[in-house]
Parts: sequence; C-alpha cells; structure tokens
Amino acid sequence: MRAVDIIAKKRDGGTLTAKELDWFIQSYTRGDLPDYQAAAWLMAVYLRGMSHDETVALTLSMAHSGDTLDLGDVAPVVADKHSTGGVGDKTTLVVAPLVAATGLPVGKMSGRGLGFSGGTLDKLEAIAGYRVDLSTEEFLAQLRDHGIVVSGQSADLAPADGKLYALRDVTATVSSLPLIAGSIMSKKIAAGAHAIVLDVKVGRGAFMKTEADARALAEIMVEIGQSVGQHVTAVLSDMSQPLGNAVGNALEVREAIDVLHGGGPADFVAHCLAVGEQMLVIGGQVPNTEEARQTLQATLDSGRAWAKFREWIGAQGGDLGLVDDPDRLPRARLIKAVTAPRSGYVAGIDAMEIGLMAVLLGAGRAKKGEPIDAAVGIVLAAKVGDAVEQGAPLFTLHANDETKLAEAERRLLAAFAWQDQPVEPPPHFHGIVS
Amino acid sequence: MRAVDIIAKKRDGGTLTAKELDWFIQSYTRGDLPDYQAAAWLMAVYLRGMSHDETVALTLSMAHSGDTLDLGDVAPVVADKHSTGGVGDKTTLVVAPLVAATGLPVGKMSGRGLGFSGGTLDKLEAIAGYRVDLSTEEFLAQLRDHGIVVSGQSADLAPADGKLYALRDVTATVSSLPLIAGSIMSKKIAAGAHAIVLDVKVGRGAFMKTEADARALAEIMVEIGQSVGQHVTAVLSDMSQPLGNAVGNALEVREAIDVLHGGGPADFVAHCLAVGEQMLVIGGQVPNTEEARQTLQATLDSGRAWAKFREWIGAQGGDLGLVDDPDRLPRARLIKAVTAPRSGYVAGIDAMEIGLMAVLLGAGRAKKGEPIDAAVGIVLAAKVGDAVEQGAPLFTLHANDETKLAEAERRLLAAFAWQDQPVEPPPHFHGIVS
Repeated sequence: MRAVDIIAKKRDGGTLTAKELDWFIQSYTRGDLPDYQAAAWLMAVYLRGMSHDETVALTLSMAHSGDTLDLGDVAPVVADKHSTGGVGDKTTLVVAPLVAATGLPVGKMSGRGLGFSGGTLDKLEAIAGYRVDLSTEEFLAQLRDHGIVVSGQSADLAPADGKLYALRDVTATVSSLPLIAGSIMSKKIAAGAHAIVLDVKVGRGAFMKTEADARALAEIMVEIGQSVGQHVTAVLSDMSQPLGNAVGNALEVREAIDVLHGGGPADFVAHCLAVGEQMLVIGGQVPNTEEARQTLQATLDSGRAWAKFREWIGAQGGDLGLVDDPDRLPRARLIKAVTAPRSGYVAGIDAMEIGLMAVLLGAGRAKKGEPIDAAVGIVLAAKVGDAVEQGAPLFTLHANDETKLAEAERRLLAAFAWQDQPVEPPPHFHGIVS
Repeated sequence: MRAVDIIAKKRDGGTLTAKELDWFIQSYTRGDLPDYQAAAWLMAVYLRGMSHDETVALTLSMAHSGDTLDLGDVAPVVADKHSTGGVGDKTTLVVAPLVAATGLPVGKMSGRGLGFSGGTLDKLEAIAGYRVDLSTEEFLAQLRDHGIVVSGQSADLAPADGKLYALRDVTATVSSLPLIAGSIMSKKIAAGAHAIVLDVKVGRGAFMKTEADARALAEIMVEIGQSVGQHVTAVLSDMSQPLGNAVGNALEVREAIDVLHGGGPADFVAHCLAVGEQMLVIGGQVPNTEEARQTLQATLDSGRAWAKFREWIGAQGGDLGLVDDPDRLPRARLIKAVTAPRSGYVAGIDAMEIGLMAVLLGAGRAKKGEPIDAAVGIVLAAKVGDAVEQGAPLFTLHANDETKLAEAERRLLAAFAWQDQPVEPPPHFHGIVS
C-alpha cells in the first residue's frame, strides 16, 4: 500500500477499507509515515467524513496501536465514565467514589483541560500530593485494593491517539466527528473497562454545539464500544450554561466535596445521580434506573460515598487535611462578589465565555503544557431561570491579578442574558443513547 | 497570525487575504512553518478551492519567495512557452529555435518528466553533452549571445514552488487548479520572460481531462500573467492521442529534427506553427497570426530554424555530431514493428496508456529521481482517423528488455480503438484564451 493512494481515496470521498486504515494508522504510529502525510489525510477525513464502518475500523486500529489493559483480572466488571468536556464539569470527582462505594469498581484514565474546557486531572491536582502519573502496575493495584482509581492516560495505551491528537491540534482538524469518536473510544477500549457511560455535552460550552451533532457522536461511540463487547450508554447533557456553580480547579473540588456531604447545586447533583444511575445499570449492579437511584441516594446519605472519596484521594497520595478542611485548598488573593446590574430573570449564561474567563484568570490553559493556577475561578450565584434582584449576588470572582479580574468582571457581566418574563431553565439532559 | 487559524479559515471555505497567503507562503518557504501544517492547508485548498483573487495572491507570493530575473537587461522582449504536460510533446525542441531564428529571443526554464508525462530536459539530455544545469549568469549570457536558452529551473527562483510541489506530490494534492496555476505562473513570473504562450493540454493524456477544466486553468493563468504586466496567451490543445508519432526521449529528438528539416508528422508540425504564431504575435514581432505564419514558414523553409537549433544545442554543450546524424542518437537493442490486428479506421489511441507504456519501457519515471533510458519508446505508424489495413504497420517498439517489450506490445494493442466507418480526427486545438 502507498500512503498517497490512501490519502487520494479519502480526498475523493471514497470509503477506506479496514485494511487500508489499519496500515495507515500502524505505519504512522511506528513512525514509518511522516506527519505531513497524516496531516493531509486528517484534513481529507475532516472535509469528506467517514462512514460508520470506517469510523469503527479506525477506532479499533488506534485502540490496538499499543498495549491494552485487561481489567478482567482485577474485577469481573469495571466501570468508567467519560465526558466530552465542558465548563464546570467536576462530575468524576463525585460519581467515581459514589459508584465505587456501591461496590462497582471504577477505573478511569483522565485528561487535562485545554481551551475553554476544564480537565479532571487539573482539578485533582488542586489537592496537594495527588498523583496523576500512576504506572500501569500502580493503576491495577489501586483498582484491586480500593475499587477506585483516576490517573492520567498511559502513553503505552493507544499511542496512535496521542500522536494523532497532537497533530490535529496544530492542523485545524480537531472538531471532526469520526476523529473525536476514534480518539475517545480507542483510549476507552485500550484501557479495558467493561461498562462505560459517555457524557456527551451539548451547547455553547461544549465541542458539540447542536443536539444532532451530539447524538451522532454518541451513537457512533456507543456502537464502537458495543462492537468490542463493552456495555456503553451515552447521556446527552446540557452545556448551554456551566454545570453547577463553580468553575476553577480548587473551587470545583470544593463543590464536589459539598455534594458528597449532601449539599451542592441542584443541577450538578441531578447530573451526578443520572450518570451514576447509568453506570450501575450497565455495570449490572441493579436491574433498572429506579433501583440505581435509590442505591446511589442511600450511598450518599450514609456517608459511604464521602468515605470512599477520602479512601481514593488518600490512596493516590492526596493530602486528606485539605479535603477535610476545604478552606485550606488553594485560595486566591482577590475575591470579589459581583452583584446583578438589574432585576429580572436570567435568560442565559454563555458557558463558552465563562470557560474562557476562567482561562483568562489562570484556571485553564490556551496552549498545551502551560502552567495553571489552582486557586482562581468563578462561582455563579444565579443560574438560568433564577429571578434576581438588582444588587443581589450574581457571581464571585477568585483572582490573583487585578487587571485580569477587571477584564473578567466586565466580560462575565456581558455573558448574562436577562428577561423580564419568567424563564424556563434548560433541561439537564437531551436524551440517552444506548 | 497563526498557521492553524489560516488552515481553519480555508477548511471552512473562507477566502484568505493576500496578507494571510503571503504570511503563510513566506513562513513556509523560510522553514518557520512545518510541512504538516502546509500539508493540511494544501488539502483544504484542494477540497475547498480558491477564489480568483486568492489564486493571484498565492502566485505572486510564490513568485517573490526568492530571486526574480529581469530579462529586460538582455533584450527588450524575451519570449517563453510552457506546456502543462502531455505525451509526445516535444514542441519546445522545434518552437524555441524556430521563434528565436525570427529574431525574437526565447529564454526558457524547463522541467523533467513525471508519470505518464514527458519532460523537455529529459529529451534534451538524449543529446550527449547537453547541459541543463546552467547558472543564472550562464543562462543570461547565452540568451544575450545566442537569443535562445533552455535550462533547468533555478532553485533560487520561486523556491516556494519547489518546496510546495515536493509536498503536493506526496500528499495527493497535485491536481488542484489554483495550485497548478500558482506553480506554473510563479516560476514564469520569477523567470522574467515578457511574452509567454501557455500550451494547456486537454484530454486523457493530460492533467486536465475536460475542456472546461483546461479553459478555467488557462483563464486564471492568463489573468495572473497580465496582472504583472506580462503578455500571456494560452492555447488549448488536444491530448486525447499523443502529439506527433514519437514517444520516448531520443525518438522525440529525432522527430523534432525531422520537422526542422521540413518533414515530420502533420499534427505535430501544425501544433508547432500554432504555438510559434502566438509567440510572435504577443512578442510584438508581427501584427497578426497570418503574418506570423508566413514568417515561421519562411524561417523553417530557409533552414534558419535548423541553423538556430544547431547553434543552441552547440552553445549548451550538446554533441552536434548526434543531431547532424540522428542515427547516432541512443538506440534501443530491440526494435519491433507491430502490425494492425484488423482493418478499419483508428477511432482512438489512449494517450495516457501510451505514456504509461513509455514509462514501462524506461523512457520515463514513476518516481522523482529515477534514472531513465533515452533510447526506448514508441513510434506510432497510424493516428486517429487513419484507415489501416490488417497487417500494415501500426507502431514500432524500441525496448531494451524482452519482458517489458511483450507487456507493452500487449497493452498498446489494447490502447487502440477501431471502427468500420470513417472517423473524424480530433481537432488539434480547442481554442485560444488571451
């Protein structure tokens, strides 16, 4: 086979065979094909798309480009969840210990934030000492001993994805449905979990802006997982406004701890329970979502979820003094409560802009590898649908730089839309794909 | 500016500004942008196309990516011609000395053959001693002293094209109209000729398969040249069957010499006169094509064209003994006359297949840099429209390998289409764009 022929076939809208895709992906991963041929191919895929069969074949080839874990040695069923990324999405911090505390092991490899979208590893690193760089042996041992582990993606798993993702990032080929599906599912297949809930975000603060795009992505990912025998369900969840109230790493850890103590914002609690429900059902713990809901609520109420959280953080080296007394988590020097400029109903909160302002304050990174500030961020005091009086709290800024604080305040005020008439809050979910 | 933003803009079908294009091209030529970003951009250009203004801006940026020659120091008007490439196209070998002999200097930088399409430099190198690697100083000196020079493209002129062409070749982005126009015209602008005739080939043995594509390419190239003050005319010429009878380097030199002596195949002679006519008109030598035709015919008949050919070849180091006695040009070991398998009218001769069989015999190269065999090739004994009796000569094979000869014979016989009724030969020309 010749790379140039495979590129030309996709360029002309042809359908690549599994053999051609595997040859291309394995050759590229080994370093036998140069980046420039992969780049031209990626752009052709971006603009021509891929059939269902091509997307499955691509994903399987990427999944088998390196080692694959067999978690069956550790437990008969291991659950995982994956979010396509959003603003204020600290779901893993609650759901992983909540589900693990019911007896279903959770083994998850996670990523860092990029651009407006936060990353679970960055949030966990707000807890001093927490290790995200477990070896495969450490990952497996902790899963066996504690039934819960959340670490960084191992470079030995699906190395094709790491290489292709870095190239997509600099060639404007990130936001392609088959490439996104292949990236996510190749890692999930290589990491070996048996039951996976995909949390596909929809809206301005997500990569998928429309429900149709999100549903198409969810459907192909579910089918890919099922084609290799995984139990996979996707929830389509709203990301038109941030999830919960806190956006920023330590602030989000604190909000997750609140939930594990029975508090926290209603939308975020509802989200965690819905994701957890699906994990219990496809993990075979309970026959239906009603029983799952009861189990999760009981686990939360009893303090077992909180206990599992402490066990997990402690096992991965995190300072338990910080989670027991969240006031000791990193705190910003400047904390400013901003009040509503008018009375009315909040009609919209632009999630993308909130995410970008968190990046501006230092909570995220515009480019891979940039350092981040765990302390800074935004805490919303009102969500879409809320009635707010002029002068009442609207949001609080946590900053370490006066200029950035002023800029963020100005742009955040503009990110709110108002209405005199009552506003229906957006649905938490747009559907389930299984 | 960021390369990824420029790639994304083109990916989404946007129109790049002259500033953006120039930044991208100059950064890439300097080595500040990696090949993979250029590759993704090339594929986006291939699939999204370019507007007229973008194509002009791209070409000018490429033309000014290195040195530019000012031939005005050598002569008030220097003419050039360029063929988009075909099978059996030895036009330069006749037209350059024919036009130069009328007093209009011809300064041409030429290329090598690739794939089914032959290259003028390869043909000229069939004449032992002929130098294709003149320095800029030598190029200018010969143009001044002899009024004719044909050498290889200098690497100092339009280096962006050399770099981009090499990348297009391996990323399946060659056959894009704006990229082809930019490649051809950037070199023509940098090489400094004032009056240029573009010979745009149409048909199965050309890069442009349809008249509409060829016309679109011709129109944009003519406009690009005119936008920088060049006199440019394009002829759309037929390449559904090979041009003339000979395909193969020494065989084509021999056919060109025949024409300069007043012989040669009628279609090829007609082609040379038509291209030469346009050169004399836009070079300002004569007021119209009728006078141009008379001047060229007189120049040919008088032997002045042949004398200028000898002067040119001798000045560039070629062995004049070989052109004076073409039997001494490289000759193949195996020469086989193949006869017609049936009586009838020749309805088609697949030019692409003839070109590929010439490559198979060794006359051309499938990959850049491969060695070629000057001696081998094909000489047709019949063209489309001819009535042929079974057993009469159809073509002659010149080969140095029995297996390849047999394979070429089989496939060449299949490249002929036959008909019982008389067949109208294809037109030599499909039009003129000026």
